[in-house]
Amino acid sequence: MRLARVSGTVVSTFNSPIFDGQRLLLCDYLNPDGELAGGYVIAVDVVSAGPGETVLILDEGTGARQIMGVSGGPIRAMVVGIVEEVAVDRS
Amino acid sequence: MRLARVSGTVVSTFNSPIFDGQRLLLCDYLNPDGELAGGYVIAVDVVSAGPGETVLILDEGTGARQIMGVSGGPIRAMVVGIVEEVAVDRS
Amino acid sequence: MRLARVSGTVVSTFNSPIFDGQRLLLCDYLNPDGELAGGYVIAVDVVSAGPGETVLILDEGTGARQIMGVSGGPIRAMVVGIVEEVAVDRS
Amino acid sequence: MRLARVSGTVVSTFNSPIFDGQRLLLCDYLNPDGELAGGYVIAVDVVSAGPGETVLILDEGTGARQIMGVSGGPIRAMVVGIVEEVAVDRS
Amino acid sequence: MRLARVSGTVVSTFNSPIFDGQRLLLCDYLNPDGELAGGYVIAVDVVSAGPGETVLILDEGTGARQIMGVSGGPIRAMVVGIVEEVAVDRS
Repeated sequence: MRLARVSGTVVSTFNSPIFDGQRLLLCDYLNPDGELAGGYVIAVDVVSAGPGETVLILDEGTGARQIMGVSGGPIRAMVVGIVEEVAVDRS
Repeated sequence: MRLARVSGTVVSTFNSPIFDGQRLLLCDYLNPDGELAGGYVIAVDVVSAGPGETVLILDEGTGARQIMGVSGGPIRAMVVGIVEEVAVDRS
Repeated sequence: MRLARVSGTVVSTFNSPIFDGQRLLLCDYLNPDGELAGGYVIAVDVVSAGPGETVLILDEGTGARQIMGVSGGPIRAMVVGIVEEVAVDRS
Repeated sequence: MRLARVSGTVVSTFNSPIFDGQRLLLCDYLNPDGELAGGYVIAVDVVSAGPGETVLILDEGTGARQIMGVSGGPIRAMVVGIVEEVAVDRS
Repeated sequence: MRLARVSGTVVSTFNSPIFDGQRLLLCDYLNPDGELAGGYVIAVDVVSAGPGETVLILDEGTGARQIMGVSGGPIRAMVVGIVEEVAVDRS
């Protein structure tokens, strides 16, 4: 998993019912210190994350489909957690 | 998923019937602001996207095969949606 | 999938019979305009591609094994098609 | 697998019980000589690694879920070993 | 698959018996001309490769587990072949 910050939403037409009622979040990848790492991902939101929140991104299709309770479908990236604390210890 | 812009089509011979009648789209990856992100992908089109349209690319084989209704075959990247709006909120 | 140009062959000893009689092609990744994109892959050839030909590379193990008619084995990248035309439309 | 150094911990809310009681480690990727390679990953800890330790990161969902004894769930990266020695021989 | 040169070994504690008796090789990725490509991988050795040898790396978990004769476990990268010849033909 990697850290990201929610920076927007995406509205799209689809040809699969799996996305009905799902929010798609635009998420910018972060370094552990909270700075932009470069790169982004569009992920399904299952934790009701809002703009500016730091989240955990899982980028793996099999796990994502299981979380959504479906056996198949065009899913790979998902917001799986809202981050409360990143404790860096590089002493 | 990532954003891309349809920039062409690819015609190829194949050794698998899974591609019969399928369009292969050349898609340039985009940043959320609509600029080229660098990189491209050749993806199966299941949403009838046209040149210049902004689309969502899913790059995962298992989900792609399920969308096409096949249990196997040489598929990984797919155009799964036509983007209507990318709302960026970095305030 | 991505575009590549066949630039050689690789001969290797293996510990798995899945490669018996298979050709391994050295393929340089290309940009849509036909220039080298940087990077290469060693792929199983199932379309009898020759040196200098532009091909489509699929880099996904499950699909590759199905094309070869095996349920398992150390395969991931495969030359799945010989490209006839890349029509770029960025107008 | 790749080498990494444990550099912190992450606390997050989740919508899946699979993470109950699991520690999430912030791990910086390393080169074989022990220097930072750039990039990081947030991985589930199954070997009780501590800050500053060099570990082996596996970044593959199916294997990770099997190690945790679950058939599904939002897991991909895992700390699978604590490194005792990296013997480099480039003579 | 990609080319790599064996540049060392890694000794690690594990929490899974799948690695019992297995050698872990440190492998530097190579370009087709034999120069370092940048990047490395730690791979299970199933072909008894030695330091300095050029090998083929498969980086895919499902195929790797099948080669090792296990249905599950924390494996992704594997040394699947010892390269005898890379014939480059870019004429």
